[in-house]
Amino acid sequence: MYKRYQKHIENKLKKIISQDGSIYGAAGYILNAGGKRIRPLITLLACESVGGNFKLALDAAVAIEILHTFTLVHDDIMDNSDTRRGLPTIHKKWDMETAILSGDLLAGLAFKSLIKTNTTKLSEVALVFAQAFIDVCEGQDLDIAYGKKNSVSVEEYYTMIGKKTAAMISAAAEIGGIIGGGTVKEITALRNYGTHIGIAFQIKDDLLDMLGDVHSIGKQAGKDIIEGKKTFLLLTALEKAKGTDLKVLEKISRRRKIDQSDIKSVRRVYEKLGIFNSAEKEINSHIRNAKCELRKIPESDARDMLLKVADKILKRNN
Amino acid sequence: MYKRYQKHIENKLKKIISQDGSIYGAAGYILNAGGKRIRPLITLLACESVGGNFKLALDAAVAIEILHTFTLVHDDIMDNSDTRRGLPTIHKKWDMETAILSGDLLAGLAFKSLIKTNTTKLSEVALVFAQAFIDVCEGQDLDIAYGKKNSVSVEEYYTMIGKKTAAMISAAAEIGGIIGGGTVKEITALRNYGTHIGIAFQIKDDLLDMLGDVHSIGKQAGKDIIEGKKTFLLLTALEKAKGTDLKVLEKISRRRKIDQSDIKSVRRVYEKLGIFNSAEKEINSHIRNAKCELRKIPESDARDMLLKVADKILKRNN
Repeated sequence: MYKRYQKHIENKLKKIISQDGSIYGAAGYILNAGGKRIRPLITLLACESVGGNFKLALDAAVAIEILHTFTLVHDDIMDNSDTRRGLPTIHKKWDMETAILSGDLLAGLAFKSLIKTNTTKLSEVALVFAQAFIDVCEGQDLDIAYGKKNSVSVEEYYTMIGKKTAAMISAAAEIGGIIGGGTVKEITALRNYGTHIGIAFQIKDDLLDMLGDVHSIGKQAGKDIIEGKKTFLLLTALEKAKGTDLKVLEKISRRRKIDQSDIKSVRRVYEKLGIFNSAEKEINSHIRNAKCELRKIPESDARDMLLKVADKILKRNN
Repeated sequence: MYKRYQKHIENKLKKIISQDGSIYGAAGYILNAGGKRIRPLITLLACESVGGNFKLALDAAVAIEILHTFTLVHDDIMDNSDTRRGLPTIHKKWDMETAILSGDLLAGLAFKSLIKTNTTKLSEVALVFAQAFIDVCEGQDLDIAYGKKNSVSVEEYYTMIGKKTAAMISAAAEIGGIIGGGTVKEITALRNYGTHIGIAFQIKDDLLDMLGDVHSIGKQAGKDIIEGKKTFLLLTALEKAKGTDLKVLEKISRRRKIDQSDIKSVRRVYEKLGIFNSAEKEINSHIRNAKCELRKIPESDARDMLLKVADKILKRNN
């Protein structure tokens, strides 16, 4: 169903990297490693859902995907991650210099692609894009800061993922809406849809990290725990746990030396306290809210597909 | 003479960092560490030189300075530099994560500032800006690659500094010209002026690295040699040297363990071969060409000041 859009996205992405050389090689490697392309898809569908031709939003959609990829490359250095999209990360396969610089290159290429958008609303579109860029940096900053803090509230978590994950997805939807010529009400609805999708997406990510395995999610299970990440699961569990359960979690949140048996202990505590269910409920609720926002725009095939993107996030297992 | 412009630049830069927090703290630290602000000054003067009010170009001028600062922060990580603008570099004062992320934040803030420019030519301006962003990444990539190569030609050096240093300065001038409403001929002249200024600036930088000391240039002398940089001095000397002189230089270009006595030996070889004079001549020639380009735009106070910026680069000692 999405294939028509996906094909355009992939074709455009392939053309972005036209040169050889170390940083272009590294940038192309990660850009064409087969991400889910959810963000550019949302941009194209949002554009169509308010009556625009999706092709008008193609450069902007691809810009969002490139900007997202840039953040992944730099986050992977900061988190010292080994794999991404099922492949070795750039700083592992090449070196740190190449990872910093190919990330920077991707940011520049993202900006250039965005600017090519043929729209009378370029400054509006670019401002949303720049703000998402800034928000993601702030979100990553909070994520790192929380990793070093013993005590983080669920509310603080929401602030963090609102910036780190949801900002880019809501920008993807909003930019599509602006380029498509949507009304203020429609654009706001699309933006809110993106925010809810983004929050659901991140909580699902937290969940998959504990439930998935390296083959289905392309990275090691329990990685968040090893990295000392303050996830929805951990923070919700810390609010509910008592006695020895609490001690298990506190060890994790204080980021002492963690091994596979600790990950198993945490998983048992999560199961006992019903944390996986709480996460599922929270995801469901945000998906419901996302769909609710879509009712504010007229019925169309594109709107149906946006609804299905929401369901896809709910059901994804990688 | 430039004070009126400088004051506007500094005021605007101070407003960019409105928040506390680790990456804003680090970004503000480097942004307000007192750079020479040559790039934004060129943007404002270029705008006025073609008849525009300089205030129209203020957001874009500041955007250029922020983008430049972003590249410094990341370059300093890659080059493992200890000091910048006379202060400890961000990765030394904080850590690598903060340096990567505050650099990224600066790139986002630069973009946001640019986008605020009130001009009908926003897409043209933004495209020049994005291309400069990309060029700088390519230039840094070449700089690192050359550091690892034994043999680099003077021609390759020019390609590298054309991207790494001159691209941003020529973009600064070109953007000012576009915002100021210059003709195609005027904008091209300003762009070429920027390119020549940029090349002269970089060769002067290479020269100061060998002649300056830590107090006047804010960094250790001979740093380029220690880092294995292929400078104008080294590459020109390699073309001229024979016998033991050549051996001294080859050791440097192969980046074996280098100490202070090696730096002294290299300086002696440079003096003997007249390399410092060759560099001065090359700088003079590019400054002359830069001024020549300015004759293609009408006489004005702003044009006079651009001519004086060129002289300032010629005479700078830090």
